[in-house]
Amino acid sequence: MKRTTRPTPIDAPRGLAGVIVADTSVSDVRGAEGFFQYRDRSAIELAETASFEDAWQLLVTGDAVTDASRPAFAARIADAATARTADLDVVVDAVSSATPDVLAGLAAAWPLLGARRSIRPLYDLDHDDRLADAIALAAATPVLVGALWRRSRKESALAVLEDRGVVANYLHQVTGVVPDQATESALTAYLIAVMDHGFNASTFTARVIASTGADAAACLVGALGALTGPLHGGAPSRALDGLDAVGAPERIEPWIRGELAAGRRLMGFGHAVYRTADPRAELVKRVARRTGGPRVELALRFQETAERLLAEAKPGRELHANVEFWAALVMEQCGIPRTMFTPTFAVARTIGWTAHILEQARDPKIIRPSARYVGPAVRVPAA
Amino acid sequence: MKRTTRPTPIDAPRGLAGVIVADTSVSDVRGAEGFFQYRDRSAIELAETASFEDAWQLLVTGDAVTDASRPAFAARIADAATARTADLDVVVDAVSSATPDVLAGLAAAWPLLGARRSIRPLYDLDHDDRLADAIALAAATPVLVGALWRRSRKESALAVLEDRGVVANYLHQVTGVVPDQATESALTAYLIAVMDHGFNASTFTARVIASTGADAAACLVGALGALTGPLHGGAPSRALDGLDAVGAPERIEPWIRGELAAGRRLMGFGHAVYRTADPRAELVKRVARRTGGPRVELALRFQETAERLLAEAKPGRELHANVEFWAALVMEQCGIPRTMFTPTFAVARTIGWTAHILEQARDPKIIRPSARYVGPAVRVPAA
Repeated sequence: MKRTTRPTPIDAPRGLAGVIVADTSVSDVRGAEGFFQYRDRSAIELAETASFEDAWQLLVTGDAVTDASRPAFAARIADAATARTADLDVVVDAVSSATPDVLAGLAAAWPLLGARRSIRPLYDLDHDDRLADAIALAAATPVLVGALWRRSRKESALAVLEDRGVVANYLHQVTGVVPDQATESALTAYLIAVMDHGFNASTFTARVIASTGADAAACLVGALGALTGPLHGGAPSRALDGLDAVGAPERIEPWIRGELAAGRRLMGFGHAVYRTADPRAELVKRVARRTGGPRVELALRFQETAERLLAEAKPGRELHANVEFWAALVMEQCGIPRTMFTPTFAVARTIGWTAHILEQARDPKIIRPSARYVGPAVRVPAA
Repeated sequence: MKRTTRPTPIDAPRGLAGVIVADTSVSDVRGAEGFFQYRDRSAIELAETASFEDAWQLLVTGDAVTDASRPAFAARIADAATARTADLDVVVDAVSSATPDVLAGLAAAWPLLGARRSIRPLYDLDHDDRLADAIALAAATPVLVGALWRRSRKESALAVLEDRGVVANYLHQVTGVVPDQATESALTAYLIAVMDHGFNASTFTARVIASTGADAAACLVGALGALTGPLHGGAPSRALDGLDAVGAPERIEPWIRGELAAGRRLMGFGHAVYRTADPRAELVKRVARRTGGPRVELALRFQETAERLLAEAKPGRELHANVEFWAALVMEQCGIPRTMFTPTFAVARTIGWTAHILEQARDPKIIRPSARYVGPAVRVPAA
């Protein structure tokens, strides 16, 4: 290995905003154009048409999904998630004995599962073995989350629906009922739409950890930690606060006016970076409309009123309903309890994290930036 | 909040090498000068003279440690680590039921403890409450690690040595014997010397997660994951491979010549970034020499021979024994088993991580870089 001279320090913008830290072929988000792709496919088109398993296979392998590749991928999922259940049971038992919190439980479950299955550092594996670990961990995730949820309610996991896919089985565990096709399709569209979204903080965390050559479970746990941060935007349940508060359509306008007058932020509206409409929000809104009902009507009216009043109160800011607003509606319509919104988001985003972990692992360079010391100089301690 | 226009993308060097991502007043490593400070004190001087608790208090609070501040800090440690043992017992029981692996156990234990103690997101707390969580988690860490180790050997945790500090109690759990003063001092010096070391990958991971406003346990778990990566250098036990292989002094030279001829890397020698001697290696070597004995004599001879042969084989490369080489010796001399080297390193580094988490939490800007999409353009799927 050639030793290179240390580069001259470069001052980065705060939060590394706009700093290109890597090349990627996993996904591309061009917010200004309202455009968003996974590998060589439109993410929105995939969300509208693909199965969860096909979108997952495309993202994690990068290869076009074919009738020939589907059964092998399904077999890998089944092996990790439904065949080797003894491991999962031990981990769920262990974690549930300490906390009913599903997110903390998942964070604890991954390293325990990794240890039980002797998952090795990325550094020590070739790409095929890394891919096997990535698929196995992502396959275990909805099973773990579903089982942790049921255990937190003192219920056992339900039997696997052998003839249904990952999403239907997940809904089955979380809601307790066998989902109909419309519900499964609605949740599938949402999950695919949020599987990945560029170099957000959780994905970047996964890649920093992967750059050290640590194992895939260690990368996922770090990413999940970042996802739980309020500034990451991983808390869709807050987007329902407005709908809950207004209750009836005629109370929407006075309530929003009151919030804005009090200087409070309207949850579920606006995006930290982009001015244009988020294509995910548009997609998930279409999905919500298909499920229909009075709650969706209330949400549509809420959106319309909020956008009008926000345009009045903050002209030029272009504050639109974001993906969390409609995601919350769709999850609610699918019967997912509010405490399970973030874990459900995590089930989807785990797919993107694993794709990024595999890509980062091909680069042998550790991610290790610098800092500028601005503290006091060394003092000699008093004798 | 003012909305700013998106900055023009900036290409960063690979691995963010030399990119200044933040200002810090926690520590400064000036490798070219062989210099290294914690807050306003020389880290080496602290390692030679301070107690573990004083160095910890200085790093995490940034304030000079006084006779007045010591008892309050000791009380915080005792509250988190020895008073509230019921929580710790539940977590150790849970984790140990799933794996005997101490590092995976610690990764699982932190989020479980966080959930049981209702640790809240950094985003929702003021600095004092964040500090309380940071100290409590770091105080729980050596207790968790010690208990997980004992449990992995089917032994219960030993009673707390009430009149001894954190390091003596840690040694007591790990070795099973009450440590003498020399052993305690040797391990203390090593632990202080590695509490922090700039923006390495694990510290940076902790800061990225903290920038999302997640809770301190989530930040620590991510950092630990990065620490376990082979490229992070968090595996001091590998540095003993050479000593084990040679066995006797007369076999040193032929063994090293054989390794170099075979093109293998000599573990424990050289540093990824710096050419000058690592001041930590010098310090920990002094500590090792004080403990004495045939193993240390063998190590001294090994170092001398290795550096001479490396200078011959790779002229101009300046390959010296690194901190891991001597750290491994010191831990071995203190009676710490090899599988506990990395967990012991983690106990120390947790102090630095928490100091960085607290500093990052004061900056409300999320760390979210960009990437360049280099994959294929979107194709229209076949009908």
